[in-house]
Amino acid sequence: MSKLRVAVIGAKGRIGSEAVRAVEAAEDMELVAALGRGDSLETLTGAGAQVAVELTHPDSVMDNLEFCVAHGIHGVVGTTGWTEERLAQLTSWLDAKPGTGVLIAPNFSIGAVLTMTFAQQAARFFESVEVVELHHPNKADAPSGTATRTAQLIAAARREAGCAPQPDATTTALEGARGADVDGVPVHAVRLRGLLAHQEVLLGDTGETLTIRHDSLHHSCFMPGILLGARRVVTTPGLTFGLEHFLDLG
Amino acid sequence: MSKLRVAVIGAKGRIGSEAVRAVEAAEDMELVAALGRGDSLETLTGAGAQVAVELTHPDSVMDNLEFCVAHGIHGVVGTTGWTEERLAQLTSWLDAKPGTGVLIAPNFSIGAVLTMTFAQQAARFFESVEVVELHHPNKADAPSGTATRTAQLIAAARREAGCAPQPDATTTALEGARGADVDGVPVHAVRLRGLLAHQEVLLGDTGETLTIRHDSLHHSCFMPGILLGARRVVTTPGLTFGLEHFLDLG
Amino acid sequence: MSKLRVAVIGAKGRIGSEAVRAVEAAEDMELVAALGRGDSLETLTGAGAQVAVELTHPDSVMDNLEFCVAHGIHGVVGTTGWTEERLAQLTSWLDAKPGTGVLIAPNFSIGAVLTMTFAQQAARFFESVEVVELHHPNKADAPSGTATRTAQLIAAARREAGCAPQPDATTTALEGARGADVDGVPVHAVRLRGLLAHQEVLLGDTGETLTIRHDSLHHSCFMPGILLGARRVVTTPGLTFGLEHFLDLG
Amino acid sequence: MSKLRVAVIGAKGRIGSEAVRAVEAAEDMELVAALGRGDSLETLTGAGAQVAVELTHPDSVMDNLEFCVAHGIHGVVGTTGWTEERLAQLTSWLDAKPGTGVLIAPNFSIGAVLTMTFAQQAARFFESVEVVELHHPNKADAPSGTATRTAQLIAAARREAGCAPQPDATTTALEGARGADVDGVPVHAVRLRGLLAHQEVLLGDTGETLTIRHDSLHHSCFMPGILLGARRVVTTPGLTFGLEHFLDLG
Repeated sequence: MSKLRVAVIGAKGRIGSEAVRAVEAAEDMELVAALGRGDSLETLTGAGAQVAVELTHPDSVMDNLEFCVAHGIHGVVGTTGWTEERLAQLTSWLDAKPGTGVLIAPNFSIGAVLTMTFAQQAARFFESVEVVELHHPNKADAPSGTATRTAQLIAAARREAGCAPQPDATTTALEGARGADVDGVPVHAVRLRGLLAHQEVLLGDTGETLTIRHDSLHHSCFMPGILLGARRVVTTPGLTFGLEHFLDLG
Repeated sequence: MSKLRVAVIGAKGRIGSEAVRAVEAAEDMELVAALGRGDSLETLTGAGAQVAVELTHPDSVMDNLEFCVAHGIHGVVGTTGWTEERLAQLTSWLDAKPGTGVLIAPNFSIGAVLTMTFAQQAARFFESVEVVELHHPNKADAPSGTATRTAQLIAAARREAGCAPQPDATTTALEGARGADVDGVPVHAVRLRGLLAHQEVLLGDTGETLTIRHDSLHHSCFMPGILLGARRVVTTPGLTFGLEHFLDLG
Repeated sequence: MSKLRVAVIGAKGRIGSEAVRAVEAAEDMELVAALGRGDSLETLTGAGAQVAVELTHPDSVMDNLEFCVAHGIHGVVGTTGWTEERLAQLTSWLDAKPGTGVLIAPNFSIGAVLTMTFAQQAARFFESVEVVELHHPNKADAPSGTATRTAQLIAAARREAGCAPQPDATTTALEGARGADVDGVPVHAVRLRGLLAHQEVLLGDTGETLTIRHDSLHHSCFMPGILLGARRVVTTPGLTFGLEHFLDLG
Repeated sequence: MSKLRVAVIGAKGRIGSEAVRAVEAAEDMELVAALGRGDSLETLTGAGAQVAVELTHPDSVMDNLEFCVAHGIHGVVGTTGWTEERLAQLTSWLDAKPGTGVLIAPNFSIGAVLTMTFAQQAARFFESVEVVELHHPNKADAPSGTATRTAQLIAAARREAGCAPQPDATTTALEGARGADVDGVPVHAVRLRGLLAHQEVLLGDTGETLTIRHDSLHHSCFMPGILLGARRVVTTPGLTFGLEHFLDLG
């Protein structure tokens, strides 16, 4: 079987260089180009790239994708900064090039995506749901974007299912003890030297609890999702937003 | 809105008496009958039961269900001992009474069922998967039936997805250290005074792990699943095997 | 070997009746009296009690202990409400009756006491320490008294060792996300149906974390500590405050 | 206050280069020498080193320590392969040079050492104790040396306290399900991609459990212990074996 011909754009960055190694190590892939800042996009066509992994910057992502889509090169995009306008622009490029696909994912960690999906699915079956996220102490925001997003998804699922508000008989509390309130879901942020990025969704009902925990121990945790994206995007024309759509979760 | 008229058969047992209390406490239900050993099944029709929760014994469950189905009373069944023959017999009764439904569930804990379902969904995305179950030390079998079943579901999902065998470089091991092998999935059984029934599915890939943990802290953990079953079975004619089919997981 | 002759005062309460069963089940003890409200304390002397387990109410505990100490009956006391005055009074009774011992313990759970002790010992070796407590949602206060006490002990140990303040680069936070501040130690309170009483102390430093977790799954968790107290108090004259003093932790 | 003058021997290795960075980053230390293979030990005296961190190989450690002790340079030693003979030899060198100290530690992770110490202290208070260790799947031995050592310490503590054998009613078990038996303590070894080195000691008694968990997320986890060793060894003449002796745990 011929190998998938993959290029990495933004190959010198921390995640990009990790992606270069991951593509090289994948038995079903061949790394055909690794572009850094200033390298010409023509390299992609010259190298016969089928998929480009785009890990650059909001300033350059649109130019890179315009070129890729125009040349029928599928995209797997980790760069952030997506707005309605940008997505509409990208969609119009894709419309003009049927057969070409682009996957944009805010999070390429399969574990993080599954945690959010499972939390969403389970949320309506339990009286109580809380989120605890744990990160290294150099992090500037609390709670993490992932935890806030997870809590919002949980809240939406419960609202849709008509769940009652969570039980909580607290009458005397130290300020902050019960965490942040994100759409009615308490979210707690722990900051601990030694940790990287971790999240726990705790669900409880009569006599039982269900805990879904994701631990990121190294930033290489994005690689399996990027490789999976590259394998799937070649047969998924158009725009896909979110890795969960490639996980066939039903 | 009129309340759902629910009966409990086997109301004197440990789970049965818990079910009686749970039905009584449910705002959308009315307990119309609670039958113990020797009580007449006619009580069910006399009381106008819409649903019967059957928590008795393999010796009596078939007679009870024959009566219920014949009288159009839906069934929610926790009694075990189901064989191909018994299921075929029950199906023939249900065929003769369209509109009547029976739910049989080997496990009414929603948390346990979700754990198995999520483990199955996630299994193919991770290089490594192991199961750790933890129970009180009076338990006679190891691993638990639930853990064995979970491992089998994981193994089947991985087989279907064409996953490689799990990586394991162990060359020197004390006997038993790496757990029991259930279809290629290591399963470890902990026995600890103070525990009831707990299970953890650990999944790992490059740089990240996902853990799904279920804790049963009290045998009342079956009640939310039984109530959910009663609410759903009235609009689900025919035989349903497994609570997961009522959880709309996609 | 002759058995230890133990009485329970407050034998009809939830913990008291549990204590009656625990003493009866202990092979090295004999339950010689079980007093409820209104029963005469003379029963204790008549029965030849060596140790009285006192589980009543602040209103009655002083009378009960005055009687016990006066008659050389050792005490194991779970009743709360101790003030400087009460302790001084009790000490004076004990001074007058050398050889007699009384153990008062705010918490008879050995696991809870060890968690606090270990947290205190470990606290000065880690840059970061946080406490997460998890309880059923009917609890009125947050954080729990045990979690607050644990955080205070941690803070005191760090202060004594001259530890720097904990690192925390948070600049943007939702209100409450970082928990309650107890003497500089963040404490987070989770409320979840299905739980009883649980506490986790998380300690982190470069490249590693240490977690000490205590789970109370049933209120019988106080029994091993009460029995241990009864066995030890007979050879420990005078007043002992806190079960930790009977654990020989060095 | 003058800074502690520290040298690293074996400065090019994975742990050694980490130690170089850690000493450089410590505010109370000055890195005065970093020796690789072939570098002369005279560098140490020339640089005025007070403490040498020895992270080389069993082949070279004795020569290195002979030199250090002879010149009154204290040693902090992570190199393995210690025998009775070697320890006796080192002790005789130290006897000839009163005031000089050497710390040898099989494990410089403070978290790992505390886990073992706490497990040992707690073991006799619980009916049940089991150990679960979790490592990356490239590990050759199962269980890990640390887990085996932990179980042995637990077993010794229970034996000394006269504890009964652990309760276990298992009559039907898949081979390996109940783990390896280390002196009567069940030890379970999980191998999972994404993990580094983790260990959990689970203790259970009536109604409660205590869990002590150590997570090594990066091999830099040995640095705080090495630095603490360097600070303490200068005032601890003679041979100290095991970091626990520098933790003042009572």
